[in-house]
Amino acid sequence: MTGRVVVAGLGPGADALVTPEVTEALAEATDVVGYGPYVARVVERAGLALHASDNRVELDRACHALALAAAGRRVAVVSSGDPGVFAMAAALFEALEAGPAAWRGLDIRVLPGITAMLAAAARAGAPLGHDFCAINLSDNLKPWATIEKRLRLAAEADFAMAFYNPRSRARPEGFSRALSVLRDTCEPARVVIFARAVSTPDEALRVVPLAEAAPEMADMRTVVLVGSSLTRVVERPGAAPWVYTPRSVPA
Amino acid sequence: MTGRVVVAGLGPGADALVTPEVTEALAEATDVVGYGPYVARVVERAGLALHASDNRVELDRACHALALAAAGRRVAVVSSGDPGVFAMAAALFEALEAGPAAWRGLDIRVLPGITAMLAAAARAGAPLGHDFCAINLSDNLKPWATIEKRLRLAAEADFAMAFYNPRSRARPEGFSRALSVLRDTCEPARVVIFARAVSTPDEALRVVPLAEAAPEMADMRTVVLVGSSLTRVVERPGAAPWVYTPRSVPA
Repeated sequence: MTGRVVVAGLGPGADALVTPEVTEALAEATDVVGYGPYVARVVERAGLALHASDNRVELDRACHALALAAAGRRVAVVSSGDPGVFAMAAALFEALEAGPAAWRGLDIRVLPGITAMLAAAARAGAPLGHDFCAINLSDNLKPWATIEKRLRLAAEADFAMAFYNPRSRARPEGFSRALSVLRDTCEPARVVIFARAVSTPDEALRVVPLAEAAPEMADMRTVVLVGSSLTRVVERPGAAPWVYTPRSVPA
Repeated sequence: MTGRVVVAGLGPGADALVTPEVTEALAEATDVVGYGPYVARVVERAGLALHASDNRVELDRACHALALAAAGRRVAVVSSGDPGVFAMAAALFEALEAGPAAWRGLDIRVLPGITAMLAAAARAGAPLGHDFCAINLSDNLKPWATIEKRLRLAAEADFAMAFYNPRSRARPEGFSRALSVLRDTCEPARVVIFARAVSTPDEALRVVPLAEAAPEMADMRTVVLVGSSLTRVVERPGAAPWVYTPRSVPA
């Protein structure tokens, strides 16, 4: 048997958002490697070994997956969302670069998925309908100064923005500081969307002006979207408003 | 029959990248509305009306879809990729905001898809594995000065970047100017990826340093990805190198 690794994106939660390509790769796998809650989304079957690990051990997990593939196993590394967006794909290639030369000959494929910001944007309307950026607000692996600089430049560029990992128990202050930077650089009416656990039974969507945005509105299951200066809110009867960013920028 | 509109993302091309949610919505539709080549991807069947239109008539198309839904039809507006990323969702909400008040009561859902930059990134490795931005390089609907400003600020923020619509026959100069801005702001070794028609039979991937990037390497079926200053290239035997952006930023 020739080993291989697929790095598969499971999407934001609902089975209806898992691509057929990923479903097929999981059906062919001998081993599934990933963070516990994501491995738990894979249906168990005879002959499939599940290797669940803790959060924050991405490099160990990547090395484990590559070693299994080098030993001839068909490995699926699972991420929520898209594996290439603040998820396992970068960790896998970091491990590959640092590991034995023989690993570079392995059959590796990254299978894209629906990333959280796009699922959240779809629920809200089209807030990322024009130029935008995606920023990981966790300062576990980068200095806070880098995050703050990027926020200020993104506001100056008038990008819509998507924030991943806005807040955790270990980092209660970061999102508060991010909101302060936005208040320095954007008008109080700027649209902020808190989208929690989109496509799961726990889904919740909240649309507020920046002036009313509060740190407690986000947790680790929330992706936060911020409009550009041109983003529009369209009220509708009996539901949250639609939010969209127009395709045009006036001269 | 109660009308409705779904704005559905068909992904970059391969059927294996269409979500089950979109497949089901197309099966339930009475009408499919979209740009000709995307409508052509929908399987014809009895009882399904296909309404193909030209490029650059997004608002007309959106109004048509909303009017059909208001008349009780189950309409699917199709986009390639994700409808919320430089595609039909923003146009639909623009039409909704400008249209009859009754339209605001319509049942509208946006169904996310695999957008081109994520499919391209997956093929290349994980070039968007850290903070990044997405910029539409077409100046049909915004001044070139806005594009140039965003490019300069994105380079200063050290975002990885994804460029949609880099070049067309009607706009042969724009991408050339974008490369000049990058050459002003980034080092010559900066990684540039030209990803054409990913997941289709015409797929082609090319990885070059910025110093060797040339306007002719892109066309309207190409998405261009540019690494951050930290993006790594990992050579491998017998294939294009892997490209990834590490998860860490050193202090």
